[in-house]
Amino acid sequence: MMTQHTSKEFDEDLKSLSEMIAEMGGLAEQLVGESISALLSRDLAAAQRIIERDRVIDSLQHAVEEKAVLTIAKRQPMAVDLREVVAALRVSNDLERIGDLAKNIAKRVVALEGQLQPPKLAGGVDHMGELVLGQLKEVLDAYSRRDATRALQVWKRDGEIDAIYTSLFRELLTYMMEDPRNIGFCTHLLFCAKNIERIGDHATNIAETIHYLAVGEPLIDERPKGDLTSTTTISFGED
Amino acid sequence: MMTQHTSKEFDEDLKSLSEMIAEMGGLAEQLVGESISALLSRDLAAAQRIIERDRVIDSLQHAVEEKAVLTIAKRQPMAVDLREVVAALRVSNDLERIGDLAKNIAKRVVALEGQLQPPKLAGGVDHMGELVLGQLKEVLDAYSRRDATRALQVWKRDGEIDAIYTSLFRELLTYMMEDPRNIGFCTHLLFCAKNIERIGDHATNIAETIHYLAVGEPLIDERPKGDLTSTTTISFGED
Repeated sequence: MMTQHTSKEFDEDLKSLSEMIAEMGGLAEQLVGESISALLSRDLAAAQRIIERDRVIDSLQHAVEEKAVLTIAKRQPMAVDLREVVAALRVSNDLERIGDLAKNIAKRVVALEGQLQPPKLAGGVDHMGELVLGQLKEVLDAYSRRDATRALQVWKRDGEIDAIYTSLFRELLTYMMEDPRNIGFCTHLLFCAKNIERIGDHATNIAETIHYLAVGEPLIDERPKGDLTSTTTISFGED
Repeated sequence: MMTQHTSKEFDEDLKSLSEMIAEMGGLAEQLVGESISALLSRDLAAAQRIIERDRVIDSLQHAVEEKAVLTIAKRQPMAVDLREVVAALRVSNDLERIGDLAKNIAKRVVALEGQLQPPKLAGGVDHMGELVLGQLKEVLDAYSRRDATRALQVWKRDGEIDAIYTSLFRELLTYMMEDPRNIGFCTHLLFCAKNIERIGDHATNIAETIHYLAVGEPLIDERPKGDLTSTTTISFGED
C-alpha cells in the first residue's frame, strides 16, 4: 500500500498547494477590495457578484484541505516539510474567513438599499479598507517568498488598523446620537468596519503562520499579553 | 523510517483526539454560557476570567492540529479513518472560533462598565443564548456519538436563531432611535447578539462535519442555495 516518496513528488505536491493558495489569495484580495468599493459606491450589482464569488474561495479551501491531508498521508513529511503543508492548511483557513467577511460586507450593501446615507461617513471606512488591503497584499507576498521579516512588519502594523477602527466606532456612535435617522446606516457601517478590522486580524494570523514556517516556533509567544502567554506555548513539527 | 500501523495504535490516536475535542467542547460550552451570564448580570470579574480562559481552548486547538497531522503522517489512514482525523481538525477549528466569540462577548462586558443599561433589553439576548447553548450541547453530543440524524436536526434548527437575531436587531435599533442615551449600550449588545448568532453558525458547521463523517459527502450540497450549489461539490477522502 505504501510507496516511498521522492523529493520530486513532494515538491510537486507543495507547488500545487502553493498555486491553490495563490489563487485563493488573489481572489480574497479582489473580494475585499471590491466589497469595500461596492459599499462606498452603494453598488448593488457588484455586491451580488461578490456574494456569488465567495463560493469559489470555499471550494478552494476544501481543495487545499484535501490536497494537504493526502500529501501528509502519502509523503509523510517531517520537520520543515511538514510545516509547509500545515502552513498551507492554516493560510487557506484564514483566506476562507477573509472571503466570508468580504461577503458579509457585500450583504450589507444589499441590506442598505434605499437607506439614507449621511455625507462624509465613508472616509474612515475607505482609509481602513486601504490599510487592510495593503496588509493583505503584503502578507500574501511575504508568504509566496517565505519572507519572515516582511511578515513580522505586517504583524506589527495591525495595531494601526485597530486604532482607526476604535476611532471610527466612536465617530459612528456620535453620528447616531446626533440624528436618529443615521442609526440604520451607521449600524451596518459599524459591522462593515468590524469586518474590515477582522480581515486585518486574519492577515496578522497569516503573518504568524509565515513566522512559524520560517522559525518553527509560534510567533504568538512574543505577543505582549501578560504573564499567561507562556501557557499557550505549543512546540510543533520538530518532535 | 515508516512503520506499518496497527489498528490498535490508530484507535488510540483517535481516542486521544476525541478526548481533546471533548475537553475543548466542554470548555466552549462553559465559556459561551458564562459569557452570556456575565453580559446579563454585568459581571466584570467573571468577564475577565473568561478572557483568560479562552487561551486554554487556543492551546487545545494547536494540540489537536499537531496530533491530527502526526496521526495522518504515521498511520496513513484511508477513507472513513481519514475522515475521522479531518473531522477532528474541523471541529477543533469551530470550537476555537466559538471560544473567540465568547471572549469577545466578555470583552464587551468590560467595555460596557459604567454605561447606562436600558431595562427589558436583555430578554432577547437571553433567549438567543439559551437556544444557541442548546444547539452547541446537542451537536457536541451528536459528535461524540457520531449521530448524523441528531446532527441534521441541529443543522435544520439554525434558522430559528437567525430569525431571533433579525428581530433582536430591529428591536435594538428601535431603542436606539427612541433615546440616544441607549446607543452605546445597544451597539455593544448588537455585536454580542451577532456573536451569539455566529456561535450558532459554528454549531451548524460541526453538524455538517458530523454528516460528512457519517456519509462521506458534504451536507452543504443539500442546502437550498440556488443553482450554483453544484459548483461547491468537493469529493473527499474516498478517491
